[in-house]
Amino acid sequence: MLRLPINHCKNCGAAVQYRLPDDGDTKERAVCPACGTVHYENPLNVVGTVPFWGEQVLLCKRNIEPRRNKWTLPAGFMELNETVAQGAARETHEEAGAQFELLGLFSVASVVRAGQVHLFYRARLLSDQFDPGHETVEARLFSEADIPWDEIAFTTVRETLVHYFADCQRGHFGVHEFEVS
Amino acid sequence: MLRLPINHCKNCGAAVQYRLPDDGDTKERAVCPACGTVHYENPLNVVGTVPFWGEQVLLCKRNIEPRRNKWTLPAGFMELNETVAQGAARETHEEAGAQFELLGLFSVASVVRAGQVHLFYRARLLSDQFDPGHETVEARLFSEADIPWDEIAFTTVRETLVHYFADCQRGHFGVHEFEVS
Repeated sequence: MLRLPINHCKNCGAAVQYRLPDDGDTKERAVCPACGTVHYENPLNVVGTVPFWGEQVLLCKRNIEPRRNKWTLPAGFMELNETVAQGAARETHEEAGAQFELLGLFSVASVVRAGQVHLFYRARLLSDQFDPGHETVEARLFSEADIPWDEIAFTTVRETLVHYFADCQRGHFGVHEFEVS
Repeated sequence: MLRLPINHCKNCGAAVQYRLPDDGDTKERAVCPACGTVHYENPLNVVGTVPFWGEQVLLCKRNIEPRRNKWTLPAGFMELNETVAQGAARETHEEAGAQFELLGLFSVASVVRAGQVHLFYRARLLSDQFDPGHETVEARLFSEADIPWDEIAFTTVRETLVHYFADCQRGHFGVHEFEVS
């Protein structure tokens, strides 16, 4: 999802101006000179899971840009009318066609450059059979030793996997918060 | 921040149509018939803190709508170009003028009705003197027994406070995830 600049007012269609709003706000916003609408742009949440089957985790080979043919955990943009957990479960169904039990929140990563926050849950797989959707070339289980570390699509996915295997090793799962640049 | 409907294309200003986009998306979006721009609407993050001073927590009496004159934890919309933690710290400075050390993530609450996710961190106050901004009538410390439970502005704030005092009692702070309707 490319973040396009705001040129026109979403309410009336007039060309906007970037300036400080009149309400004491200290940041420049796209303000409509015709109807006064102030347009805010804020970070978006990407929600997904770390689906595991014994000591293996499920990765999906992306069939869409960006990073087509790279491997990722199932994840996508959180939508209106769902909780963070529901969004993570929905993306896991859509991208991997997996059957699973959703467990706790596992990682919360700020991606400032992209204006995103990535949130991953652990998910216990109930089957090792997958039925990936059109956004996925292939869904496959990997042991830690077989993870294609150089072919992981996103830094937040790589870092989440590193935390996951470290927590497996110590036998306790925390909630990991970090920032990627 | 009221969520206004999208009537016009932010790129070219033409009137949009709500329909399924042509890329396989399964949700109706505001699509521009003139230039093809697809407009997505997604949940927003509200970020803040539970600032504590000994056994007391800091609440702010709101000077703005909604819930003017009700009490809240310092929090506001996450902005672009900041991490979740930086946004929580910024709001605590802006709304309470507090000096503090930011600690770990404490609560993550989905507010489906509002299309929001609220994230609160614990923050250890370094002073009991506050210098609240224009959005706050008064910033004041409260012991658990004195919390104005019937005058709390938002359900996520109330639930976060309940979790906070329960965790104080048991001497261990977790990350609490919940949904409010």
